[in-house]
Amino acid sequence: MLLSELNGETVGICVSGGLDSKTVTRKLVDLGVEVVCFTADLAQPDEDDIAGVAEKMAPCGAETVIVDLKHAMAEACFGMLKAQAMYDGGYWNSTGLARAVTVRGLVPAMQERGCTVLAHGATGRGNDQMRFERYTNVLAPEMKVFSPWRDPALLAEFPGRSQMADYLQRVGIEAFAGGSKRYSTDANLAGLSYEAEDLESLRTACTIVEPQMGVWPVDAPDRPERFTVRFESGRAVAIDGKAVDPLEALLTVNRIGGRNGVGLKNALENRIVGTKSRGVYEAPGMELLGFCLLQVYQAVMDRRATALFRDLSRLVADQVYDGRAYDPATRAAHAAIDVLAAPASGTVTVDLYKGNIHFVSLTDCPQSIYNEADSSMEASQGLNPESSQGYAEVQSVEARALARAGQIWSDQ
Amino acid sequence: MLLSELNGETVGICVSGGLDSKTVTRKLVDLGVEVVCFTADLAQPDEDDIAGVAEKMAPCGAETVIVDLKHAMAEACFGMLKAQAMYDGGYWNSTGLARAVTVRGLVPAMQERGCTVLAHGATGRGNDQMRFERYTNVLAPEMKVFSPWRDPALLAEFPGRSQMADYLQRVGIEAFAGGSKRYSTDANLAGLSYEAEDLESLRTACTIVEPQMGVWPVDAPDRPERFTVRFESGRAVAIDGKAVDPLEALLTVNRIGGRNGVGLKNALENRIVGTKSRGVYEAPGMELLGFCLLQVYQAVMDRRATALFRDLSRLVADQVYDGRAYDPATRAAHAAIDVLAAPASGTVTVDLYKGNIHFVSLTDCPQSIYNEADSSMEASQGLNPESSQGYAEVQSVEARALARAGQIWSDQ
Amino acid sequence: MLLSELNGETVGICVSGGLDSKTVTRKLVDLGVEVVCFTADLAQPDEDDIAGVAEKMAPCGAETVIVDLKHAMAEACFGMLKAQAMYDGGYWNSTGLARAVTVRGLVPAMQERGCTVLAHGATGRGNDQMRFERYTNVLAPEMKVFSPWRDPALLAEFPGRSQMADYLQRVGIEAFAGGSKRYSTDANLAGLSYEAEDLESLRTACTIVEPQMGVWPVDAPDRPERFTVRFESGRAVAIDGKAVDPLEALLTVNRIGGRNGVGLKNALENRIVGTKSRGVYEAPGMELLGFCLLQVYQAVMDRRATALFRDLSRLVADQVYDGRAYDPATRAAHAAIDVLAAPASGTVTVDLYKGNIHFVSLTDCPQSIYNEADSSMEASQGLNPESSQGYAEVQSVEARALARAGQIWSDQ
Amino acid sequence: MLLSELNGETVGICVSGGLDSKTVTRKLVDLGVEVVCFTADLAQPDEDDIAGVAEKMAPCGAETVIVDLKHAMAEACFGMLKAQAMYDGGYWNSTGLARAVTVRGLVPAMQERGCTVLAHGATGRGNDQMRFERYTNVLAPEMKVFSPWRDPALLAEFPGRSQMADYLQRVGIEAFAGGSKRYSTDANLAGLSYEAEDLESLRTACTIVEPQMGVWPVDAPDRPERFTVRFESGRAVAIDGKAVDPLEALLTVNRIGGRNGVGLKNALENRIVGTKSRGVYEAPGMELLGFCLLQVYQAVMDRRATALFRDLSRLVADQVYDGRAYDPATRAAHAAIDVLAAPASGTVTVDLYKGNIHFVSLTDCPQSIYNEADSSMEASQGLNPESSQGYAEVQSVEARALARAGQIWSDQ
Repeated sequence: MLLSELNGETVGICVSGGLDSKTVTRKLVDLGVEVVCFTADLAQPDEDDIAGVAEKMAPCGAETVIVDLKHAMAEACFGMLKAQAMYDGGYWNSTGLARAVTVRGLVPAMQERGCTVLAHGATGRGNDQMRFERYTNVLAPEMKVFSPWRDPALLAEFPGRSQMADYLQRVGIEAFAGGSKRYSTDANLAGLSYEAEDLESLRTACTIVEPQMGVWPVDAPDRPERFTVRFESGRAVAIDGKAVDPLEALLTVNRIGGRNGVGLKNALENRIVGTKSRGVYEAPGMELLGFCLLQVYQAVMDRRATALFRDLSRLVADQVYDGRAYDPATRAAHAAIDVLAAPASGTVTVDLYKGNIHFVSLTDCPQSIYNEADSSMEASQGLNPESSQGYAEVQSVEARALARAGQIWSDQ
Repeated sequence: MLLSELNGETVGICVSGGLDSKTVTRKLVDLGVEVVCFTADLAQPDEDDIAGVAEKMAPCGAETVIVDLKHAMAEACFGMLKAQAMYDGGYWNSTGLARAVTVRGLVPAMQERGCTVLAHGATGRGNDQMRFERYTNVLAPEMKVFSPWRDPALLAEFPGRSQMADYLQRVGIEAFAGGSKRYSTDANLAGLSYEAEDLESLRTACTIVEPQMGVWPVDAPDRPERFTVRFESGRAVAIDGKAVDPLEALLTVNRIGGRNGVGLKNALENRIVGTKSRGVYEAPGMELLGFCLLQVYQAVMDRRATALFRDLSRLVADQVYDGRAYDPATRAAHAAIDVLAAPASGTVTVDLYKGNIHFVSLTDCPQSIYNEADSSMEASQGLNPESSQGYAEVQSVEARALARAGQIWSDQ
Repeated sequence: MLLSELNGETVGICVSGGLDSKTVTRKLVDLGVEVVCFTADLAQPDEDDIAGVAEKMAPCGAETVIVDLKHAMAEACFGMLKAQAMYDGGYWNSTGLARAVTVRGLVPAMQERGCTVLAHGATGRGNDQMRFERYTNVLAPEMKVFSPWRDPALLAEFPGRSQMADYLQRVGIEAFAGGSKRYSTDANLAGLSYEAEDLESLRTACTIVEPQMGVWPVDAPDRPERFTVRFESGRAVAIDGKAVDPLEALLTVNRIGGRNGVGLKNALENRIVGTKSRGVYEAPGMELLGFCLLQVYQAVMDRRATALFRDLSRLVADQVYDGRAYDPATRAAHAAIDVLAAPASGTVTVDLYKGNIHFVSLTDCPQSIYNEADSSMEASQGLNPESSQGYAEVQSVEARALARAGQIWSDQ
Repeated sequence: MLLSELNGETVGICVSGGLDSKTVTRKLVDLGVEVVCFTADLAQPDEDDIAGVAEKMAPCGAETVIVDLKHAMAEACFGMLKAQAMYDGGYWNSTGLARAVTVRGLVPAMQERGCTVLAHGATGRGNDQMRFERYTNVLAPEMKVFSPWRDPALLAEFPGRSQMADYLQRVGIEAFAGGSKRYSTDANLAGLSYEAEDLESLRTACTIVEPQMGVWPVDAPDRPERFTVRFESGRAVAIDGKAVDPLEALLTVNRIGGRNGVGLKNALENRIVGTKSRGVYEAPGMELLGFCLLQVYQAVMDRRATALFRDLSRLVADQVYDGRAYDPATRAAHAAIDVLAAPASGTVTVDLYKGNIHFVSLTDCPQSIYNEADSSMEASQGLNPESSQGYAEVQSVEARALARAGQIWSDQ
C-alpha cells in the first residue's frame, strides 16, 4: 500500500533507532497517522542496549514496544542447524531467519495494540522487503504492509541520508547523516551480515570487514582450543560437559568459535528478486555447531538418507532465504528432517585453530551404522570379501550391456 | 573370475611395488600363469621414483610396464574442478578419479601385450575393487577381471601381511611385512587419501595424519600469501600471471595450497557397497582452485543455473566415486556443465593463511551478471524500488491464499 | 546361506502351492531340515481359495500357516496412493509393495514357531530375491535367509520345471510341469504383474495379456460410468457416498476401474540389479484412486509444495521397488508427504470410459488455494493487473543482465 | 512501460485479428503512435486462414506483417518431445512453447521495421504477459515492452469486451463483443489450451470442451488403428514407413492421434505468478509421439541415466512454462538430454484405440541395453543366479547395520 492510503489505519512500524526509523516514524506522526514502534530483541551482538532503542525513538512521537525474541531466535537457529540449511552452500541465513522470527513475534504484539498495518524500513531492492511482506501476508493475511522505501512520495522526499538528517533536525530531533561507512551490518544471535558500500565492489577484499562476534583467523590464538558438544536427536544439549538450552548453547559457541576465527565467509549470492548481492557473513557459532553435528550425521545416516537429507537441507535454506519459513514445503521438509535426525545422538570433540575445525572424536553414538569390522580392509570379521565377487559379477552385467550398446564414453 | 580359472589367460596386473603386488605377481608366475605388470604414473607426490617400481617387481619374474598418465590425470582433475565434484560434500574424489584414469590408460597397454585379464590388488571390502571391475567391464567388455583379494584360495593362503612376507622370503624375494603403520595411503596428482588402521577408530583425531603434499595449518606460515588465477570457461589458464597447462597448474597449486595448510579434511563416508569408511583427505590444489573457480561461478550463473549446477555437481561426484566416470549419465552431466561453465572466465585473487582462503578480488569477468547498480541499496540507477511494490503485491496473492486455506504453520 | 548350511535350523518357507514351492519344501523335508510353510493372504484376485494352498502343500510333509494380511496390504496401498508412488513413472509397485507387507507379516509368525531361517522361492535374477533378503535383514537381523534358486546344489538338481515334476512324482506327490504359458503372473490387492516367457520379446504386443482384474478398453462398456470418491487428508473415506475402510475401498475401485479398462500398462523397467525387465501391469483401482487424489493435490499444493511432493513421490516409489520400504529415507519421505497431504480433503467425481478417466468435478475442498477470482482473465476482483507491471519490471532486471552478459541462446 | 510513455516509439504489436487486437492497435494509431502489426503462423489448427488476420486488422490503420514460423514451431516441438517436457506432469506446454517461438521469430521482423517497443495483448493476470516480457528482454534487451492490459489508462477505458466493441464501432470498424463463450482457446501446432469462463469452475466437467484437433474417446472409431514411427537419436524421422520432416511429422500425428481421441487432459496448474489456473489441453500428436519415444528411452537408458533424464525433463518443462526457454539452465539441460537421447534410435509400433495407446513392438534399436537372456527368469544364459548370492550378502551388511542401530520402522 502507499503512504496516501494510510489514513485511518494504525501502523505498527519495525524500528532500529536509526536515521531511517526516526525519519519514517516522525513523518507518519506528522501526517496524523496512528503509529506504534516495535523492536525485536534477537540477542544481536552489536546492540549493547536494545532498551536504548526506545529512548532514541522517543522524540519521534510514538511509543516503542520491545519484544523479547531471544529464545525464539535460538530455537529457530537450532532448526537451521538440524537442517544444515546454508544458502548457496555457505551462508547460514542469519538475516533471513531473523525476519521470520521477527514478524512472527511482532505481529501478535502489533495486533494486541490494534495495528492494522505493518511497516518496515527495508529498501526496495533487497530481500528483506519481500520477507517482511510475505511473513505478514501468511501470518496475518488481514493486515496490510507498508513499505516506505518503495513509496514514490517518500522516495522523492528522502532520496538519501542527508535529506533525512535535515528533516529530523528541522523538526527538532537530534540526528546526523553519519560519516561514510565502508559497509552496513545486520546482526542477531545467528550471525552478522556485512554488505553494501565498499563491499559492492568485487575488487574489495572481504577482510576489510571488522568482525563483531570474533576475529579473523590472523588475529586468533596461536594454539588450538578443544571443544566438545553433545547432541541428542540433532539438538545440542551440552557443551564441554555442561547442559545448555538453545540460547545458552548459541551464546557459548558464538564466543568460542568467534575467538578462534571460525565462520567468516564471503559470498556473491542470488537474491530473491533475481539480482546478485555481495556479502560477508560472520556466524562462528552456527558454523561450529553445524560442523560438529555433521560428524554425527555422517555416522548415522545411510547413503540414501544422506542424499535425501542434502536435498531437504537445500530446500529449507532456499525457503528461509525466500521468506517462506512457514510454508507447507518447509514444514514438510522439517518433518522429514526430524525423522532423519532422530538417531543423531553423539558426542563430538574438535580442535579449533585460526578458522579451522579439526575432528578429534565421535563417541556415545548408539545409532551409528559405522562398523569398524565391516569397513576394515584387514580384519577377519564383518563383510566377507568373497561375497563381493558375486556383487561385482552382478554389476558387470549392466556394465557390459552399456559397453556393448556403444554407450560408454572415455575420450575426455 | 577365480584363481583356478586363469589357466590359458594372459594377466595384466596393476602393481605398486609393495608387498601385495609382489606376492600376487610371484604367485601367479609360480602357477604358470602368463603375467605382465603395469603401473601408472599419476604424478603421485609420495612416489619419488615411479621407475623404482619396475626394479622392485623384477624379482617376481614378470616384466613391468610403466604408463605415463600424468597429463591424463591432470585433465581429469580439471573435469572434476569444473564440475566442483566433491563426494559427500567435501572429498575431491582423488582415489576414485585415479582409478578411472588408470584403467583407461592401462587397458590399451595391456591389450597391446595380449592381456586377456586385468588383475588388481584392491581388497574385497572397499570401493576400488568395484571401480577396477566396472571400468574394465565398460572399457573392455571382452576382458575379464581377476580380483586376488576376493579369491578364496588366495585369502586362505595369505590372510595377512606376515604370510606374504614369509612366502616371498621362501621364494628368495626381499620383503618385510612392515612395522605397524598408523594408516595406509593412496596418492596421485589430485591428492592423498589416508585410511585404515588407527584411523578406523572414531576416537582417533584426524591430526595423527602426517600430510605429504603440505602441512597442517598449525605448521603453515604466519603471514598470508596472495594467489591469483585466471580462468577461461571454467579452466585455469594462468597462475600468478604465468600461463599454465593443467599439469603445471596442479603441480603449482598443490605446492602453494599445501604449504599454507589448505585442503585437509576428515570424512566418514558412504562406500559403494553400503558400508561406511573413515578417511582423511589431503587435496590442497583441488581445494584452492575449486574455491577460486566458485567465485567466478557465483558471478556468472543465475539462480536457476546455480541450482542445476549443484545437482549436476553432486551427480558427477557420485558417479566418479561409484566407478561410473564414463557412463551416459556422467557424460550428460558434463555436457550440461560445459554449457553452464562456458561464461566462467575471470581472474580471482585470494589470500591463503593457515588453511583459510580469503576472497580478495574478482576481475575481468565479462559475462558476470552481477551489477552493482541493481544490487546497491543506495544507488539511484538500476532496479526501480517502485517496481518492487508490484512484485510484492503479486506474490502476496499466493501468500494470502495459503494463509486463508489454513496451510501456514508457525508453531515451531 | 547355502543348502548345506541348513542343518540345525528351522526354516520358514514362503509358499504359493505351486511346483516350485512343493519341490523346495519336500526337498528340505527329505534332507531332514525342520520346515514350516507360510502363505500370505494379500486379497490376491487370482487366488479364489487361499485356503487351498495348505491342502496343496500337505503332501510335502510340512504344516502350512496362512497369515491374513488383507488389511495390512490395503493400508500399504493407501500409503502408496498418498505418495502417488509409481515406479519409473507408471507402475504402481504392486509386487514390490506386497513383498514388504508379506515379510513384515510372516516374520512374526515364523518367529512364533521357532523359525531361524526365512526361505523364499524367488529366482536368482529378479527383484524379489533382493526384497525378501533385505526385508528379513532389516526386520529380523537375527534371522538368516535361504534362497533356493541361488543355491548351486538345487540349481543343478532342478534346472527346469520338468525336473521338479519328475522329482515330485518320484516321491509320490501329484505334480505336473504345466503346459507352456505365455507369461507368469504375480497378484495381490494392489494389482497384477505379467512378465517372462512371451512377454520377454519386445515384438510381443502387451495385449496378449488376459487381464484378471478387469478388461482391456476394447472390451469395456460403451458408455461412461460416473464415479465419486471422498478424500480426507489424502485417504479415501467414501465411495459413491458410502463410507469405506481401505480394504473395501480397494476392492470397490478394483471392480469399477477394472470393468472400465482402467490401469493396464506396458513397461520396460530398470531392475534393482541393473538389468531391464519387460512387464505388463494391471492396477485398475490404484490408477483410479490415484488419478482422483491427484485432482485434490492440484488444488491444495502450492508450486513449491508440488515440486517437493514430486521428488518425494519418486523417492518412495524407488525405495519400495528396491526393497527399502522401511528404511529411514522412506520413513522421512512419508513424514513429509503426510504434511503435504494433510490439506488434501475433497470430493472428486470422474467419468470412466474404456480406459479413460475424465474429470467431472472437485467439491468440498476447504483448503484449496485455487481461487477463481485471482485466476480469471476477466473478473474485476483478485490479483490486480497493474501490480503485474512491477512484477514484470523486477523480473526484467535479471533477464536483461543475462542478455547483456551474452548468456542467452536461441539458435535452436 | 505505460501508454503515456509511447511517444516517439515505434510499436510492433502482436495481433490475432480479434477484438482486443483491433482495439489496442486503433487506440495507439489514434494517439499518434507509430504502429506495425505482426502475426505468427504457428500452424495453428483453428486458423483456417492466417492471411485473414491482415484483412481483419486493415481498418485499424496499421500494416500487418505475417511471419511464417511453422517450421520453427515444429522444431521447437521436437525439442520438447526429446525432453519429454510436460509441465506439472501432463501438459505439453503448447502455449508456453509458442510464446518462445513467436517472440524469437517476431523480434527480428520488428527490428527490421524499426520497432523499438514490442506490445502484446496478454492479460495482466496470466503467464503470457510474463513470457512476452521475458523473451523480449532476453532476446532484445534494447527493446521495451508495452503490455496494454496492465496499463491503468487502457484498463479504465476498456474494462470489458462491450466497451471495446463500442469504441471500434464509434471509429467505424466492424466489431462485435461476441456472445458468451464457454471458454477461450489458444492454438498452435503443438496443441490447444482451453481455459477461462465456464472452465474456471471446478464443477464444470472437462468434457464441455469441443476438441478442435480431434475427438473425445467416446467419438473415436470402434476399432484400433495401428501406428508406426521410427526415431533416430530421439527425433521422429519416419511415420508408417514414410520419411517425414518435423512439420510433416506433427501434422500427421496430430491427425492420427486426434481422430483416436488421444491427448486430451484436464489440469489445475500452478501459474508463474503463484496463482492456480484450470485448463483443458489437447495435444494428440505430442502425446502420441511422446509415448512412442518413451518406449525407446526405456530400452536405451540405464537406471541412473533415467533418473537424470527425469530431472532434466522436469526442468525443461518448468523453464519453458516460465518463459525461460533460452536461459542457460535450459540450454544446459538440452545439452545433457542430447547426450542421453543420442542412442535413442528405434522403431515403435502401437495401437490407438479411443484415447488409449497400446505398445505393440520395439524393433531396430541397436543401442538397447535390454537383454532377454539377462532378464529371463528361466534361461540358462546371462546373469548367473549364484552371483546374486554374493550381491545379496553384501547388501545385507548395510541392512543389518541399520536394523541393529534401531533405524528401521515398520509400524505403518
